[in-house]
Amino acid sequence: MEHFPAPLERLVEQFARLPGIGGKSAQRLAFHILSLTDEEAQSFADAIVDAKQNVTCCPVCQNLTAGGLCPICASPRRELSVICVVSDPRDVAAIERAREYHGSYHVLHGVISPMNHVGPDDLQIKSLVERVAKGDIQEVIMATNPDTEGEATAMYIARLLRPFGVRVTRLAYGIPVGGHLEFADDATLMHALEDRREL
Amino acid sequence: MEHFPAPLERLVEQFARLPGIGGKSAQRLAFHILSLTDEEAQSFADAIVDAKQNVTCCPVCQNLTAGGLCPICASPRRELSVICVVSDPRDVAAIERAREYHGSYHVLHGVISPMNHVGPDDLQIKSLVERVAKGDIQEVIMATNPDTEGEATAMYIARLLRPFGVRVTRLAYGIPVGGHLEFADDATLMHALEDRREL
Repeated sequence: MEHFPAPLERLVEQFARLPGIGGKSAQRLAFHILSLTDEEAQSFADAIVDAKQNVTCCPVCQNLTAGGLCPICASPRRELSVICVVSDPRDVAAIERAREYHGSYHVLHGVISPMNHVGPDDLQIKSLVERVAKGDIQEVIMATNPDTEGEATAMYIARLLRPFGVRVTRLAYGIPVGGHLEFADDATLMHALEDRREL
Repeated sequence: MEHFPAPLERLVEQFARLPGIGGKSAQRLAFHILSLTDEEAQSFADAIVDAKQNVTCCPVCQNLTAGGLCPICASPRRELSVICVVSDPRDVAAIERAREYHGSYHVLHGVISPMNHVGPDDLQIKSLVERVAKGDIQEVIMATNPDTEGEATAMYIARLLRPFGVRVTRLAYGIPVGGHLEFADDATLMHALEDRREL
């Protein structure tokens, strides 16, 4: 016997399918929906369908966009001859928050990961190579995550781009600003020492 | 400048309004929605609207139901002369899971809480008194939470029901099954000693 009415049970199930939401949390969220006004519930539902239907990938950089070119690729103030390659749209948001970078992006939508059966063809690598092959690109900055898979993906792409004679760089490794030396791992400290700069 | 397309930003905002969901979690959930198929996203949205529109309160016990009498009030196998009073529909589900109780319920939808500006008129207390006044009720079991507000609400209702000569009982206090004596608080141990039973 079900202890909640069927429509509520179905909503709990839907919430429970979301990542990181367990059974109890799903119940709490579903009860919260019941406490909303009709308009609030409707606009939540609309936001889901709207985001799913209208968010697409930019045909140039593959970043998420609400149709057509993304704002960055369409901006006349961005340097389109520099491409920063990231694995995820959230990484674009992170770099934009730093307000330091004024070039364009390329979103791979993942990293090469044989463990998870993700190969180069599952990523937006071909579209990156095509962008570089068209010319007019001066530099490609690899900004995949500094872990094994991110590194491997960066190395793979760098090798693919070598024939085009484009400059391929990697984000600097080092101790994070505000971090503590005593908590820095060996690999990070090694890179920080190697790439030390004159004061 | 927004770093995500507007429809995605709106969805992140909607998720961030849910209780217990912070900014980063909201982002993660919104990206998860983008990774669903169109049908999955649509059925999530439908579940929200469906639950909000079709879940109502049972006219008798005020428990949540998908229209009309709730399954418990409508069941010929439940003893309708016994009413278990709980503060929340989730408490009904908890008691039903124990498979021990075969009477009916009454859901208050809250407890008296002057701190949160919740008075007796904001709860389903009047409808409970009306049920008892109609007669045919032999026992009212108070099963509000064993905290200050739950206790005060139970005492308040017990006093209201006294004129009707109905038997009013309270769930037993004691050490929880599977618990450890050393972790039981003083009040619980006191009740457990007072209400000790012959073996």
